[in-house]
Amino acid sequence: MSRWEPNARGRLAQAALALYGERGYEKVTVAEIAARAGLTERTFFRHYADKREVLFDGSTRLQQTLTEAVAAAPAGRPPIELVGAAIAALGALFEADERREFARQRQAIVDKNPDLQERELVKLSRLGDALTDALHDHDVPVPAASLAAQVGIAVFRVTFVRWLDDPASRPFPELVRAAFEELAAMTHP
Amino acid sequence: MSRWEPNARGRLAQAALALYGERGYEKVTVAEIAARAGLTERTFFRHYADKREVLFDGSTRLQQTLTEAVAAAPAGRPPIELVGAAIAALGALFEADERREFARQRQAIVDKNPDLQERELVKLSRLGDALTDALHDHDVPVPAASLAAQVGIAVFRVTFVRWLDDPASRPFPELVRAAFEELAAMTHP
Repeated sequence: MSRWEPNARGRLAQAALALYGERGYEKVTVAEIAARAGLTERTFFRHYADKREVLFDGSTRLQQTLTEAVAAAPAGRPPIELVGAAIAALGALFEADERREFARQRQAIVDKNPDLQERELVKLSRLGDALTDALHDHDVPVPAASLAAQVGIAVFRVTFVRWLDDPASRPFPELVRAAFEELAAMTHP
Repeated sequence: MSRWEPNARGRLAQAALALYGERGYEKVTVAEIAARAGLTERTFFRHYADKREVLFDGSTRLQQTLTEAVAAAPAGRPPIELVGAAIAALGALFEADERREFARQRQAIVDKNPDLQERELVKLSRLGDALTDALHDHDVPVPAASLAAQVGIAVFRVTFVRWLDDPASRPFPELVRAAFEELAAMTHP
């Protein structure tokens, strides 16, 4: 196997993000990312398929966390509660303060590039499908499962943006709960 | 200007959809669509930029209908009511029975092709942004506007799929109202 590089993955991600921010995502090469991180291109490709995947690295864990949270919930809970708890559980991935700074820089890069935006929409859509399936496996009938899952992903998107720029730096799960309460108040004025 | 062709636009759309269904979207050329419709390629390009746009022709009208419905609503109504009314207003575009059959065939083609799915996600996301802006212009503050708009688009997606295959062929606005009632019941069990 390969030579061990201490935290190569994290160093590559930081280097990529810094370069994308400085020079624009389109213009940066994998060779430059590796050089900035003090690593080789070979090491880059051991961790990431291409320069785009550095920005979407977290999506497998997001999906896993969501579906595991639904599977672990007690049976018979209302679907929107399952969804709310699952989305709040994503907070475990967003805990550290440096995660918020990383996510903020990442979002600024994605927002500037239509291809990255499309990729993000595809990932969110798959997250919605995975959540629908997880609810269905947890005995929620399909029509309710897909409504609760799609609405849940909508709340996730809105909450994520709020979390990035929250002036009080509140933790993600707190903002998720507030958004679901807001939704409940909205639908029952 | 050009020679007038009776309902060229509709004939081209029907021909394209039939060919995409028979042979797969990727394999069909504009020349073949034009020939099937008994028209020239020049006529095709007077109506559509490319073969993909035949499938996304309705999105400008969707956006216009949504934003006009919000703008026309009495001031001071709760944001989720504005969104519900705006999405129900889309029913005017989906009224005729042949629209449902067309939409069903179209969806089957989109569902088979990842590029078309991405395009669909981008259009839906823009619809959400337009709806957020329309709410904001109607004096809904930004945090509530974006939550209501994103949730509204989620309900729209779910309802659209239900409408395509509704065994009772209920009209679109009726299914929209049912979905919003379902959402209200879900958030207040």
